[in-house]
Amino acid sequence: MKIGLIGLGKMGMNLALNMQDNGHTPVGYDLNPDNLTAATNNGLATATSLADLLAKLPTPKIVWVMVPAGGPTDTVITQLSENLTAGDIVLDGGNSHYQDSLRHAELLKKQAIHFLDVGTSGGQAGARKDGNFMIGGDPDVFKIVEPLFAAIAATDGYLYTGPAGSGHFLKMVHNGIEYGMMAAIGEGFDVLQHSQYDYDNQAVAKVWSNGSVIRSWLMELAQTAFEQDGNLDEIKGTMHSSGEGRWTLDTALDQQVATPVIAMALMERYRSLSDDTFTGKVVSALRNQFGGHAVDHE
Amino acid sequence: MKIGLIGLGKMGMNLALNMQDNGHTPVGYDLNPDNLTAATNNGLATATSLADLLAKLPTPKIVWVMVPAGGPTDTVITQLSENLTAGDIVLDGGNSHYQDSLRHAELLKKQAIHFLDVGTSGGQAGARKDGNFMIGGDPDVFKIVEPLFAAIAATDGYLYTGPAGSGHFLKMVHNGIEYGMMAAIGEGFDVLQHSQYDYDNQAVAKVWSNGSVIRSWLMELAQTAFEQDGNLDEIKGTMHSSGEGRWTLDTALDQQVATPVIAMALMERYRSLSDDTFTGKVVSALRNQFGGHAVDHE
Repeated sequence: MKIGLIGLGKMGMNLALNMQDNGHTPVGYDLNPDNLTAATNNGLATATSLADLLAKLPTPKIVWVMVPAGGPTDTVITQLSENLTAGDIVLDGGNSHYQDSLRHAELLKKQAIHFLDVGTSGGQAGARKDGNFMIGGDPDVFKIVEPLFAAIAATDGYLYTGPAGSGHFLKMVHNGIEYGMMAAIGEGFDVLQHSQYDYDNQAVAKVWSNGSVIRSWLMELAQTAFEQDGNLDEIKGTMHSSGEGRWTLDTALDQQVATPVIAMALMERYRSLSDDTFTGKVVSALRNQFGGHAVDHE
Repeated sequence: MKIGLIGLGKMGMNLALNMQDNGHTPVGYDLNPDNLTAATNNGLATATSLADLLAKLPTPKIVWVMVPAGGPTDTVITQLSENLTAGDIVLDGGNSHYQDSLRHAELLKKQAIHFLDVGTSGGQAGARKDGNFMIGGDPDVFKIVEPLFAAIAATDGYLYTGPAGSGHFLKMVHNGIEYGMMAAIGEGFDVLQHSQYDYDNQAVAKVWSNGSVIRSWLMELAQTAFEQDGNLDEIKGTMHSSGEGRWTLDTALDQQVATPVIAMALMERYRSLSDDTFTGKVVSALRNQFGGHAVDHE
């Protein structure tokens, strides 16, 4: 299957190589000429412009969009809505908000262009080999591209999830769960780090990765991280986020469903972005006001 | 290696079979005659009393205790301290609090009896095959019994963790992490269950178990649970606990280390034990007092 792949960053490049290794023919395009050069060096076919890319694809054209969620994805999908024709297929493999995907599906539908929203998990390693995909959209359109997913996914690693938006919705919740799991792992190692025992974090992550109830890919990644830096001395505990944890919480709030663990994991990420908090200043000031308790000064 | 195994419940029975399958010779003992009969039916050697058990063991005697934490373990270890002699080895494979294990180590040390505290993970399946063990105590004593762990553990599935108590401390934190991971998984499926999409929980757990970032044994267990009951209609959401999450939080509080996700997971378990809360009554009453907001009546 010949597939146009827009976006040759870390995820897109690995996906293109995965497709090529598994009997499909990606043609890559990226606004950044460095990424195009890297793709060529990796043995991938590339295009020099969107028009060039589309000219190189047979009909119906299949285009996989793998650019950052939000503005960049909006821009690319709008361009595609203007340059593709009825019966062509657009897949968005990025981390788009499912409501953006519903909008993109509507926009493309006006030109009778098909759209599949593809939640992609497994990190860069999964993009490269044995990936994980959650695919929403028209089931008949899914069937057309299913051989591609069968080729690039892990065994049982792709799922048709239902109508438009359901793939990205599922990926959003996947990431919400990920926030909670990662926070729990982090907190556990924090307790170990402050314990009376002198644990070898790498050895602990390793034994927990082999036969324990909490064995998981995240624990294996922890083992690798501790292997490189036993007490993570080189890493600051600032926890950035890309939005999907927040969206999961927004969704839970809309549903009035209690997700306190995911909420707390998100709040702890925000807390980590500041060295100090105004909350802390207020609480300290109040303790001082009513009880004369000492405050720390800047 | 001939090992006395006290406690032939779900974990002990499976461990004994695991030992026997892997070239060791357990002799089982249990206060409950039904468990003894079941052990005999499973082809295991058994003893009819503690004295009988100890008479059947060569010197130094090695006794693995696998009874419920707290009172039962206290009782058995006290009995062993009175009936074993210098150089014998006691292993506690249960979920004992690490401070109990420190106490047990001291008690046995008075008779020059060795003690290893063994955190056991992997559930019943792990007890039966490819288990997970975290072992604290004297390193030379650990070396004597290491062949046993090599035989019954998963590859890389056992670890000598340091001095007395460190095995059970590590198992405690393992369970704390488990609380957080399980709560995150639960909350994620709760959001799916209330979404506008009609997800197949079993299919979701399956795709997430194959190549996703959150792949884990817990997700595989979720897949099995949803396979048996797609929307868990037969299960009430009451979440019991056995103590290790609470102990992890107690320890974090002693350390003044923030573990809000583990704390929240524990609080949600407690919340689930009541259909209603006094908190809720108070908050509703106050909303009514200041704003005339409606309250629900019993």
